[in-house]
Amino acid sequence: MSRTRQLRLGAFMRPVSIHTGAWRYPGAYPDANFNFAHIKRFAQRLEAAKFDAFFMADHLAVLNLPMAALKRSHTVTSFEPFTLLSALAAVTERIGLVATASTSFEAPYHVARRFASLDHISGGRAGWNIVTTANPDAALNFGQDEQMDHGARYVRAREFFDVVTGLWDSFADDAFVRDVESGVYVDLERMHVLDHRGPNLSVRGPLNIARPVQGWPVVVQAGSSEPGRQLAAETAEVVFSAEASPEAARAFYADVKGRMARLGRDPDHLKILPAAFVVLGDSVAEAEAKRARLDALVHYDSGIGSLSGMLGTDVSGFDPDGPLPDIPETNASKSGRARMVALARAENLSIRQLAQKAGSYAGLAFVGTPASVADGMEDWLDSRACDGFNIMVPTLPEGLDDVVDRLVPELQRRGLFRRDYAGTTLRDHLGLPRPPNRFFA
Amino acid sequence: MSRTRQLRLGAFMRPVSIHTGAWRYPGAYPDANFNFAHIKRFAQRLEAAKFDAFFMADHLAVLNLPMAALKRSHTVTSFEPFTLLSALAAVTERIGLVATASTSFEAPYHVARRFASLDHISGGRAGWNIVTTANPDAALNFGQDEQMDHGARYVRAREFFDVVTGLWDSFADDAFVRDVESGVYVDLERMHVLDHRGPNLSVRGPLNIARPVQGWPVVVQAGSSEPGRQLAAETAEVVFSAEASPEAARAFYADVKGRMARLGRDPDHLKILPAAFVVLGDSVAEAEAKRARLDALVHYDSGIGSLSGMLGTDVSGFDPDGPLPDIPETNASKSGRARMVALARAENLSIRQLAQKAGSYAGLAFVGTPASVADGMEDWLDSRACDGFNIMVPTLPEGLDDVVDRLVPELQRRGLFRRDYAGTTLRDHLGLPRPPNRFFA
Repeated sequence: MSRTRQLRLGAFMRPVSIHTGAWRYPGAYPDANFNFAHIKRFAQRLEAAKFDAFFMADHLAVLNLPMAALKRSHTVTSFEPFTLLSALAAVTERIGLVATASTSFEAPYHVARRFASLDHISGGRAGWNIVTTANPDAALNFGQDEQMDHGARYVRAREFFDVVTGLWDSFADDAFVRDVESGVYVDLERMHVLDHRGPNLSVRGPLNIARPVQGWPVVVQAGSSEPGRQLAAETAEVVFSAEASPEAARAFYADVKGRMARLGRDPDHLKILPAAFVVLGDSVAEAEAKRARLDALVHYDSGIGSLSGMLGTDVSGFDPDGPLPDIPETNASKSGRARMVALARAENLSIRQLAQKAGSYAGLAFVGTPASVADGMEDWLDSRACDGFNIMVPTLPEGLDDVVDRLVPELQRRGLFRRDYAGTTLRDHLGLPRPPNRFFA
Repeated sequence: MSRTRQLRLGAFMRPVSIHTGAWRYPGAYPDANFNFAHIKRFAQRLEAAKFDAFFMADHLAVLNLPMAALKRSHTVTSFEPFTLLSALAAVTERIGLVATASTSFEAPYHVARRFASLDHISGGRAGWNIVTTANPDAALNFGQDEQMDHGARYVRAREFFDVVTGLWDSFADDAFVRDVESGVYVDLERMHVLDHRGPNLSVRGPLNIARPVQGWPVVVQAGSSEPGRQLAAETAEVVFSAEASPEAARAFYADVKGRMARLGRDPDHLKILPAAFVVLGDSVAEAEAKRARLDALVHYDSGIGSLSGMLGTDVSGFDPDGPLPDIPETNASKSGRARMVALARAENLSIRQLAQKAGSYAGLAFVGTPASVADGMEDWLDSRACDGFNIMVPTLPEGLDDVVDRLVPELQRRGLFRRDYAGTTLRDHLGLPRPPNRFFA
């Protein structure tokens, strides 16, 4: 069975899963945060299932939770993404490797260099998830007393993107001639000195590494605010979106791809992959019971902590059984806040109920049999709500085994997902063109 | 044969070797700068030979050479160290992995995190080569028009070291209790918030990763200036020194170890490993011919470029056949300059002769048979000129094969080098204690 559009599948990973209760689930590896052997096996499983990409979430601080929640959290201490994905590059062959790097607290020269290096080491499998850092605790780890405001963060992000991609283009693809006879290693006519001097950044260049295998590592973005959508339409090749309903997802899809068309970009050169929490069972009821069992492992303090983090406001002092009061806008990420407020209003939830959902997983979830989940994914794909999904498994290793052994074969049977990789690079998997070098033909 | 002191051996690597002519040598891999498969094999060869550590040199800019030399250089474009060593960690099991990270242009939170992560990924094999960046071209890549002066760089380096090690101590070794029953993942009584506010750096902490396997990754230092020696005596556990004569090496060894004793540190807790260029042959004459053949592949422009870089002054306009004029002190690294000036005066060299040596290798070299080289190394060890060596091979793969297949067995036969690893961490290999946590018993 052949289809013109197939799903693109990323795996959004934390070493013990993204669910705050997962480390207490039977069979879990609570120590996976610092145990490379486990993560290596997870990545190899995803590669055997032909996933497009392994995506590692990241934080730049510990203290983005109240202490009562922090002590229960396995998600805020873990490996650093560049080191982890580079190690995974050496023990995998095809799967894409997407690392988060913040434009708020990094130097673009380092970021450009590390992604270029990862792309060379992996043979063209690197992706850069561009984030601006909303966590005020992170600012304090980087010598800043105040977080930059939301708008300023995005202005810097855009300039940062221009500098990093400009550095990647420092050398033409054919610059390294390595002519043993004449002794010329690199043709300097094919090297460009960027000499960027902008409002936020000043970077001379050139980058001290050859142009990445993919030209540029794949550019990934996740913001859903107005400036986030605009940055995505201008620069992104993958968007990890967070819309939980098909209607909202279709509207987001149409909006971002419409912006691209107006900017003169081919809308097909951006893949929109909503985050999707996938729980599988032999029956829908069994899958729901599995989820309920997992959610019950989340302590109330953890739920309140997660909710406070998403809202950007500490709500632990509010009446647990009262409604969510009006929460002021803060400098925190706007997407998490908007999602939780909408959910509270739509379902008339108490703080306790909302905290339960925040600590569990409050976004898009497919909970059911391999066939029913595949049905849901097919609907989303065919109704242009997405180009695929960024899958989150509820537990490790069980939830991952379920996806790999049960869901993926069902998707393959329907022609919704590849049976093997057709190419070698992450761009090949995603069907994205290799960007031309802006300085050299 | 058992000896109380054995050699510690590091390998100081560039992907195509550190010699500027090496990429033109018969059998070389000129593309190894961007070919991970080659470097993986080199690291595995060194591990099979039981080397203590694989050490990756680094630069933070391309343009530290005049253009006429740059186009002939394979050494200034390559992999980035964190990504490369993390990838190597996944395909090796015992060898130490030492990365260079500059205190001049990095945030200490990132540096602490990446080394901690590499230490967890590798099972305790990470080492941090602390450098201050002398290259003015690097400053321009990080938004600074002027390089910090030499003294200020070292003041910042010391504060940076205190912050990074303080961040590594954020969690007690037993902080992560992961009690599934009670739902407590981490004991926050065993977490320390650094809250550093110093003249150069302001970093709150804690680090968002468990304490490294080794407590701290091994601290490596290479400067030989007065502040460099003092920093080493205060902080370093390995020094990559650069003294070329046994007399100078013995004086350096006594000086640094004496400073340690005065500071109350056990002098045995610092291993001094001079850089040593090793060329092997069936006879001394054959080894010398091999070296001459390699040196002849260095173009004059490359030699002048290397010399200019080491002196911190462009000498390409001077009379090639005249003597080296007085070169003013600059903000560049003092060790390279001092070495070249001393060499020029001691041997009455013309600029051309000095450039030939700078572009080739001007420091300590052991050129001979396995037996004669082992004799030399034994003399250095026994006369307290060193605790081992940081070996540089002239060519790859041939020069590495010679060291692994011919020199190492000779050293082992004499009881000068281990036949197998006794432990699993880099600290184990080097005989260094695991540092206590400064905040927790």
